[in-house]
Amino acid sequence: MNRFLDLADLTREEVVDLLALAQRLQDHPEPRALAGRILGLLFFNPSLRTLSSMQAGMARLGGSSFVITPGNGTWKLETRLGAIMNGDAAEHVREGIPVLASYCDALGIRAFADGRDLQADLAEANFSALADLCPKPLINLESAVNHPCQALADWKTMDDLAVPRQGKFVLSWVNHPRALPLAVPAATLHMAAHRGMEVVVLRPEGYALPRPLMDKARAAAAASGGSVTETSQREQALAGAQVIYAKEWGSPQHYGDATADAALRKKLSDWMVRDSWLERADPACRFMHCLPVRRNVAVADEVLDGPRSVVRREAYNRMVVQMAVLHRLLAH
Amino acid sequence: MNRFLDLADLTREEVVDLLALAQRLQDHPEPRALAGRILGLLFFNPSLRTLSSMQAGMARLGGSSFVITPGNGTWKLETRLGAIMNGDAAEHVREGIPVLASYCDALGIRAFADGRDLQADLAEANFSALADLCPKPLINLESAVNHPCQALADWKTMDDLAVPRQGKFVLSWVNHPRALPLAVPAATLHMAAHRGMEVVVLRPEGYALPRPLMDKARAAAAASGGSVTETSQREQALAGAQVIYAKEWGSPQHYGDATADAALRKKLSDWMVRDSWLERADPACRFMHCLPVRRNVAVADEVLDGPRSVVRREAYNRMVVQMAVLHRLLAH
Amino acid sequence: MNRFLDLADLTREEVVDLLALAQRLQDHPEPRALAGRILGLLFFNPSLRTLSSMQAGMARLGGSSFVITPGNGTWKLETRLGAIMNGDAAEHVREGIPVLASYCDALGIRAFADGRDLQADLAEANFSALADLCPKPLINLESAVNHPCQALADWKTMDDLAVPRQGKFVLSWVNHPRALPLAVPAATLHMAAHRGMEVVVLRPEGYALPRPLMDKARAAAAASGGSVTETSQREQALAGAQVIYAKEWGSPQHYGDATADAALRKKLSDWMVRDSWLERADPACRFMHCLPVRRNVAVADEVLDGPRSVVRREAYNRMVVQMAVLHRLLAH
Repeated sequence: MNRFLDLADLTREEVVDLLALAQRLQDHPEPRALAGRILGLLFFNPSLRTLSSMQAGMARLGGSSFVITPGNGTWKLETRLGAIMNGDAAEHVREGIPVLASYCDALGIRAFADGRDLQADLAEANFSALADLCPKPLINLESAVNHPCQALADWKTMDDLAVPRQGKFVLSWVNHPRALPLAVPAATLHMAAHRGMEVVVLRPEGYALPRPLMDKARAAAAASGGSVTETSQREQALAGAQVIYAKEWGSPQHYGDATADAALRKKLSDWMVRDSWLERADPACRFMHCLPVRRNVAVADEVLDGPRSVVRREAYNRMVVQMAVLHRLLAH
Repeated sequence: MNRFLDLADLTREEVVDLLALAQRLQDHPEPRALAGRILGLLFFNPSLRTLSSMQAGMARLGGSSFVITPGNGTWKLETRLGAIMNGDAAEHVREGIPVLASYCDALGIRAFADGRDLQADLAEANFSALADLCPKPLINLESAVNHPCQALADWKTMDDLAVPRQGKFVLSWVNHPRALPLAVPAATLHMAAHRGMEVVVLRPEGYALPRPLMDKARAAAAASGGSVTETSQREQALAGAQVIYAKEWGSPQHYGDATADAALRKKLSDWMVRDSWLERADPACRFMHCLPVRRNVAVADEVLDGPRSVVRREAYNRMVVQMAVLHRLLAH
Repeated sequence: MNRFLDLADLTREEVVDLLALAQRLQDHPEPRALAGRILGLLFFNPSLRTLSSMQAGMARLGGSSFVITPGNGTWKLETRLGAIMNGDAAEHVREGIPVLASYCDALGIRAFADGRDLQADLAEANFSALADLCPKPLINLESAVNHPCQALADWKTMDDLAVPRQGKFVLSWVNHPRALPLAVPAATLHMAAHRGMEVVVLRPEGYALPRPLMDKARAAAAASGGSVTETSQREQALAGAQVIYAKEWGSPQHYGDATADAALRKKLSDWMVRDSWLERADPACRFMHCLPVRRNVAVADEVLDGPRSVVRREAYNRMVVQMAVLHRLLAH
């Protein structure tokens, strides 16, 4: 493995292998496996879990990290090809990325969606351009429509908790003060389908996920024996669910139009997960969320603090699976 | 020892033991004692000494650190219980703290006073809530009314310089452009009393330290054979002093009222330590300050650059004693 | 070697020795050479290469680093002697620098020119004051008129590429949206002269480098058998060049006067390196720039993406030569 950019690049068996490595590292630490190795971390966007868990995971394997945050200690980086750089950005990624890559053994990059052009974001136009500039092992720390480290952590979390491989997985849209990117819903949808689950996307009108994301998940489901459907009928969707995975995202219909999105979501404040949502779910139903989460806007305290919530375990597994990814990329 | 939150949690003998460990680590470095161990550092407020000395101390023991600063590379964290999170903060500490704790072997947290409700700050309402969320060894890197790492460093500094255990220790209020928190005066007052010294709090009218802080120090003094008094009479207070410890703090009478505090301190610009203050002190009198210090507002250049000043040694001892704390929490 | 502040502090032979060490460390890594050693990095100004390459280089030698950025996670630091500190800055460098130095084995400081008083900046008034406060090994990470790490990396880059020691080296002014400091042009000019090259400074009227910088370079050239001239005639300057080194700087004539500088450079937008500039250069001519570079303002895409550009190698060599500097300062 030379890059970890998309869980779809791995077969189901390869994912299972990678998770076995994660479990092995959890059970039998290898504190010198990456001694002398250096991880560069380039954050175009803020972070808590990724920033801390990548550094902690690298250190647990004996390696070191450095962090670069354009616009915060480092100048802004230009990404547009052919730009006449007389504005804010002092350096182009065409220099910045290869230079940072030359200092480290693997590079992680977080670069959210531009959030203006849906087609460009679905095509990962921005992240692909950055990835093409990096000749070293590369990790996607969240791009426009992907977050493979989160997806892998969530897969492991379900394995840890013995959630059936073919269980019912409901990805539900939830409310948020503003339109958020499609990265986690896209990655989660695909991951659950890839795992072979009965995936239901529950979302209000106007928030259907873009066709290419649904198609990609359906292809994964077809290969693994799972299924993917979508609905706006909450009760029916949640009945018998073994997992409710809550996530906020902006309306793809009004992509890049904050005003139209705000108008649409104005009536959707009841899309907040409460205990009542879980009444007809499977008795063992787990509540999942990638974090950060807006308490009492997206999810009620009673759910996050209740016995079904596994959000902290998901977050802990971020470090565990990333150690496996780093090990696979860098150990030899 | 599982937490280092307040020097008052340790008996005098336990402090002496901890300082002996600090001295031992200074004399006989243990560069692999914490190999593979990870320290998480969560800074809600800016820092120079704490930020650098914690990382340096951890590295000197062979361990690693990561730093998270909400609002700066990481989003803001909500602290209020039950908050409807539709504002600035993207994540609640109820998720953030346990998640960060899960990545590391010990967590350090800096969280200053809210500075609005004196009773809540005296009760450490905010820091206690954060501490309750951390299941791992925890270090207080400065809270509303405490700064145990500073207090321990100052104790060691006096030991290093052979300041008599029962010497006269004058904690003097000094001027500052604005009202500062009570953390260091509270911790310093208690530390000197805990050490068994003759402690005099010298402060202008309106700046008497809150009763609970004085009571806590008096209890410590009673146990160690010291004493605690307070006065606004500078000459008498400073006569025969073996230590003058300067510190800025806001008026507890006008807590959270910047305007009233500013009006009160307007006439107090002569509360700046000058050489003339030290004329009647003990010939061996030391000048102490926790830093950062406003030169020529709180303390004159002539004092900071003079032979009595030990402020750099105090700062250096921050690293030394923190290494002992880390060793005690994490080595085995 | 106890400090690395100016390449002029080293004889030509000492530079050659240091570069031999850099090459040795590149060919034969020493991953434990600086085990247990700690590098403090103090950045008064933003950085990409220096910030990442210093940490990566230190880690490659087995050491650790911490980073302090006043105004960003740490409060602002006052530098003026005798200041009455009732403004923004909470701490004076007279405390800050010795304290940080006490935590580490070597300190690196980046402190750009004030950009107001040319004579003070030429005298390195600010950096010298900071350097005087540091009792530990010190590295200049860019000061008002110096950038020795960059100069050393550029020297190595020319050695790597077999650029003749006495080849023609053209340092050309190029356009930029605003007046930049003299650090890199000053360091580059001196380095090329020190290496023994035929150095031509090509710059429009109004952008002649200050006399003391030219004199310093001429002295170095005299010692090494090189030469230093200056001109505003582009064609003649570039004819037969073996290196074109592009750099932006503000008009020394209008030092600190942004408006006058802007008026002057308004007509100079053709001072952007294009392929056409290289037509009469030596066929093996290399294009160099220290980065960051404003594409299509200072240098055209066609040059940066063309076969002559060695800017990425220069950046990579930053890490390599800094490892030699760190090794020389700290290994034993």
